[in-house]
Amino acid sequence: MTINASSIFKDIEKIRTNAPLVHNITNYVVMNTTANALLAIGASPVMAHALPEVEEMAGIAGALVINIGTLSDDWIKAMFKAAKIAKSRQIPIVIDPVGVGATKYRTSTARQLIQESTPSIIRGNGSEIMALCKQDQKTKGVDSTSASDQAIDSAKSLAREFGSVVCITGETDYIVSQKNIIQVKNGHAMMPRVTGLGCTATALCGAFAAINPEVDKASAHAMAVMGIAGEMAAQTAQGPGTLQVNFIDALYKLSESNIKELFKV
Amino acid sequence: MTINASSIFKDIEKIRTNAPLVHNITNYVVMNTTANALLAIGASPVMAHALPEVEEMAGIAGALVINIGTLSDDWIKAMFKAAKIAKSRQIPIVIDPVGVGATKYRTSTARQLIQESTPSIIRGNGSEIMALCKQDQKTKGVDSTSASDQAIDSAKSLAREFGSVVCITGETDYIVSQKNIIQVKNGHAMMPRVTGLGCTATALCGAFAAINPEVDKASAHAMAVMGIAGEMAAQTAQGPGTLQVNFIDALYKLSESNIKELFKV
Amino acid sequence: MTINASSIFKDIEKIRTNAPLVHNITNYVVMNTTANALLAIGASPVMAHALPEVEEMAGIAGALVINIGTLSDDWIKAMFKAAKIAKSRQIPIVIDPVGVGATKYRTSTARQLIQESTPSIIRGNGSEIMALCKQDQKTKGVDSTSASDQAIDSAKSLAREFGSVVCITGETDYIVSQKNIIQVKNGHAMMPRVTGLGCTATALCGAFAAINPEVDKASAHAMAVMGIAGEMAAQTAQGPGTLQVNFIDALYKLSESNIKELFKV
Repeated sequence: MTINASSIFKDIEKIRTNAPLVHNITNYVVMNTTANALLAIGASPVMAHALPEVEEMAGIAGALVINIGTLSDDWIKAMFKAAKIAKSRQIPIVIDPVGVGATKYRTSTARQLIQESTPSIIRGNGSEIMALCKQDQKTKGVDSTSASDQAIDSAKSLAREFGSVVCITGETDYIVSQKNIIQVKNGHAMMPRVTGLGCTATALCGAFAAINPEVDKASAHAMAVMGIAGEMAAQTAQGPGTLQVNFIDALYKLSESNIKELFKV
Repeated sequence: MTINASSIFKDIEKIRTNAPLVHNITNYVVMNTTANALLAIGASPVMAHALPEVEEMAGIAGALVINIGTLSDDWIKAMFKAAKIAKSRQIPIVIDPVGVGATKYRTSTARQLIQESTPSIIRGNGSEIMALCKQDQKTKGVDSTSASDQAIDSAKSLAREFGSVVCITGETDYIVSQKNIIQVKNGHAMMPRVTGLGCTATALCGAFAAINPEVDKASAHAMAVMGIAGEMAAQTAQGPGTLQVNFIDALYKLSESNIKELFKV
Repeated sequence: MTINASSIFKDIEKIRTNAPLVHNITNYVVMNTTANALLAIGASPVMAHALPEVEEMAGIAGALVINIGTLSDDWIKAMFKAAKIAKSRQIPIVIDPVGVGATKYRTSTARQLIQESTPSIIRGNGSEIMALCKQDQKTKGVDSTSASDQAIDSAKSLAREFGSVVCITGETDYIVSQKNIIQVKNGHAMMPRVTGLGCTATALCGAFAAINPEVDKASAHAMAVMGIAGEMAAQTAQGPGTLQVNFIDALYKLSESNIKELFKV
């Protein structure tokens, strides 16, 4: 097996011990949630998007996470600038192409970012991953989760072209790299009803990749942790409000026995 | 009776089935909360404010919600651009004039937006609705909830001038249109202690108007759902923190029997 | 004793009665949390950052809180403009130099803001307070909490130079003014795992300073309230998710007997 409960927990322990600094240039909707998720798992988040400081911030970070959820021109400039530094320092770059396919602006920005930064990890739902490849693909907003299976071909082509690990999240998560495909089957049906859990998955990829140089395993560990924490959260949730709160608690409490009990491939 | 438990629940079912895409250009404080509320009720939220993409986003949305809570020049330009497309497509436009009256910038922006977009719905507290009409009206910050009764005259004049349905929220909500006034008496005294529940009411107006062309009823349904979910949330809340979380859960769980039991006019 | 349970509660009652308007120019990550904390304690928060309106907003506020957590050029201009008005009106200005020392941009912005506005209160963790004084000080991101003891010398020098009260938050909080040092020993070890509680402490300083002209006591009251609410929240928290929610509830419920029971100096 490529990943297992013990390899997942070893990475969590490394994050808790090393508290890697994860530099996020992300969207307004999820900043609080992703910062809290990174803190709960044991990482050290920083949000910084100003052109005059992104170079320096990416220069001290252990990973760079770029998320285009509420992009605008100034932020895009900062994304490219930070990515350049991160690339030169060979720290992992993770890109979340939120809503790509919904507007030309998102599609062209995401594609250029990927071309210039050749990210370690790209994470999106099936429609987003397909929209990165096909000129004529359309996504409906940012919450579409269908079609993750058909997205595997697109993921393979992105992995081949850019050397990236591509995470397609959905009922089953597919972590697609040039060498293999890892499947993770954790998660809960209520999770798509909480905004920003996809973005949180992306941020966790940054934390795991910051402490594990095997990018495909780091990504799969992050996806497994997302799903397991979601299942733990759902056990006592009354709806998406309590799910979101419990999810942060679960990331914080996550033990090796939780993972052994719940991890599904 | 203009609206009733059954008409409210029918709209909720339509939202849950159709998941209308609601395009929000809103403020930084409430983006997460309103996105979660829209997801919880069953709609599909998207937040997008960049000039190069708002036209396209408003072009695929079922409703456009504009909220001036943390406005700035670039965002205002995007608001006008999105409103123009939404108007040409005849999808509902909902405007929340947050804090209008507190600064000239807010007052003039809100008035111009209303004049140019002739929105389907304007939602605010009493002071805000009055400030839209009177040059010399002053609001204290963004949380003033007094004077909703006196605001009815202002609402009538806005309804007459722009053809809009005007929702004045407070202890009693007044949904004022050219033809009638609907009152909704749901809600809980702790709700004004949670930031952004007014903005959430506005966002829900967008979701309801996206699936119900009778704008006055759609607005009244949204107000009833806000109040009922607030009452359900308050039943086990220990303060505004748990109220906010429970409120999202309540929107998600809301059943016809909840509404039948709690709806008050 | 400089402050005690009764002096703390007297200030809370004043906030609940007067609902001072606190004008925040703060970061994207914490806007929702700090607005909710200010509402929960009884204050009236407003977030406004646009150059055309900050003068007017600072002109009606009872305190101005400036936080550089996600700063950019336009926001910096607004910070200086608002500070100028606040200074001329002699309302309290509170500055939170988030992440100062991590990038030159933050360091120079924070120092200039302090020099020009001579704030009533500066609040930061030990590393941040030291970075405000030393050219060669480095902070790791925004969550460093170490070294608060060694920061006292830096705080004294800032207090001397600008007449500010300097709050160093950590396991023990030190409220350093030209005349004395007040220590507050409340708080809970899980609090640094919630994003934005430092920023919330800063925002509460604004609320307390708005109703209490003795700035050192107002600051110490705010720190005590933070710590006590944190301890109350931790009693039933399952992790940082529930801690954040319970914390808001605790601010709302806080009674004189809670404070008498828990206040530690």
